[in-house]
Amino acid sequence: MLSQKTLDRLRVPRGIPIRLKDYDPRWAAIPELADLDEEDVEQRAREALKQNLDELAEAQELLWANDVWSVLVVLQAMDTAGKDSVIKHVMSGINPQGCQVFSYKRPSEEELDHNFLWRYTSGLPERGRIGIFNRSYYEEVLVVKVRPEILERQRLPPGKRDRKFWDQRYDDINRFEKHLVRNGTVILKFFLHISREEQRQRLLARLENPKKHWKFQVGDLAERALWDRYMKAYEAAISATSTRWAPWHIIPANHKWVARALVGAVLSRAIRKLDLQPPAVSPQERQAFAEARRQLEDENKGLRT
Amino acid sequence: MLSQKTLDRLRVPRGIPIRLKDYDPRWAAIPELADLDEEDVEQRAREALKQNLDELAEAQELLWANDVWSVLVVLQAMDTAGKDSVIKHVMSGINPQGCQVFSYKRPSEEELDHNFLWRYTSGLPERGRIGIFNRSYYEEVLVVKVRPEILERQRLPPGKRDRKFWDQRYDDINRFEKHLVRNGTVILKFFLHISREEQRQRLLARLENPKKHWKFQVGDLAERALWDRYMKAYEAAISATSTRWAPWHIIPANHKWVARALVGAVLSRAIRKLDLQPPAVSPQERQAFAEARRQLEDENKGLRT
Repeated sequence: MLSQKTLDRLRVPRGIPIRLKDYDPRWAAIPELADLDEEDVEQRAREALKQNLDELAEAQELLWANDVWSVLVVLQAMDTAGKDSVIKHVMSGINPQGCQVFSYKRPSEEELDHNFLWRYTSGLPERGRIGIFNRSYYEEVLVVKVRPEILERQRLPPGKRDRKFWDQRYDDINRFEKHLVRNGTVILKFFLHISREEQRQRLLARLENPKKHWKFQVGDLAERALWDRYMKAYEAAISATSTRWAPWHIIPANHKWVARALVGAVLSRAIRKLDLQPPAVSPQERQAFAEARRQLEDENKGLRT
Repeated sequence: MLSQKTLDRLRVPRGIPIRLKDYDPRWAAIPELADLDEEDVEQRAREALKQNLDELAEAQELLWANDVWSVLVVLQAMDTAGKDSVIKHVMSGINPQGCQVFSYKRPSEEELDHNFLWRYTSGLPERGRIGIFNRSYYEEVLVVKVRPEILERQRLPPGKRDRKFWDQRYDDINRFEKHLVRNGTVILKFFLHISREEQRQRLLARLENPKKHWKFQVGDLAERALWDRYMKAYEAAISATSTRWAPWHIIPANHKWVARALVGAVLSRAIRKLDLQPPAVSPQERQAFAEARRQLEDENKGLRT
């Protein structure tokens, strides 16, 4: 339903500076959906997601049985872009035993006393599991870049916070991810891309619906006021860290169901690409199994005779 | 579908020694199902589970929004009793962001160098989440009691490993749980109760199905040989640690769907009992929201005029 080519085009090519303005956040960005009206888009996206979820549930069982690979899903976006709802809709239905979600909030004093990647390592997924970072170490080159007062609290050695400083952070992240990939982690990074106007409407919707009031924080508007600086920080970070081993995907997210379907499709395809098989049984194990079987069958014979 | 009385009867009364022989592992133990045949039982159990899952998903959202309470589900059972499948069927469908599963395997050297409860604390659920321990600190009074060589590796101060020693462990666990409950954790403990014959058949099924071979471990039979000692250890542990604040439930688990439906029903009821409401909005917040709304609405006016 979503072609390989469509999924490929979501992936950010490496080594080329991107501009988010070139990426359409609307469903028009997806050739298969471009000509449909909103209702049909939702229906198609729901169908695509459902199919991918069935595949994903199967793929995840094999991931678990093999106990060699893990998958790290990095979700980044501006407020209201739908990170939580992607997690809910894409990962519900997967065996929760094989899936874990970490949300990173304000760092503790202990965490600030370590290198900037330190706090994220404890949440990395075990072999056999899909781990989701709802916000991630990318905040260290996003909010930390946009708000210099946060960087100050990190008590770093003195030095200029210039372009070289941020290039080194991107480089640290690329090397960290390469280390993980070499050790069996598949890394998939998603930027849920919404327009500024779409965020405005979603914030208003939260404010208008008493049931959603608790999701609104007054600080949200202060962040929104920095929209352009955030876009620049995202462009720089995505351009510098979309690597062969850990690519970024820019997901048009103005339509929630389209975003969910696309993330589901990319994730499902990535796990299927591992081409996992049920763990093989060695001849010794097969013999031990036959012996175990005899033993269990004999248990009741003893009772019968 | 499953009456309050039925659910109450699963709960182990406190302070009374139990004998597992008095608990029927078959669906005959459940009055609503006792007279049905296997097919009808499965259908009824599936329906009950589905209904509870819908309630559970809603209850979990409120748990998350309130960010005050957490729920710790302790699952204990003999091999093949269905812990994994309970997790899969009861917790799938819940927002994975609000749910985490920990499986405890062989302890590390570092863990053995600490008090016996130490390794379990890092997996406790955050406020707003449901945490599941697939095996738990109860292994410290189960497998560790049945296999003295494991206790030896724990490098404890010298002393007799007599009844008093185990009574102290139960007491440690009760106080640990009381501490958690006082701090906002709802604790629900489940023993999935299967018969020895049911385990035999399930082990044989694993051995006969090549797709399930990887689930079988040769050590499973050695554990099975200690069945009676395990039952005694369970009886002593459950009797000593079914408290007002953290009750045990003995779940008849010979029929898998019945076990799933019962765990789902107990869990859903426990969260509903918290009687959670969407977080209240203070007058100050309401004012700030109105201001935010004006600000967002004005943004576009500026553009239009």
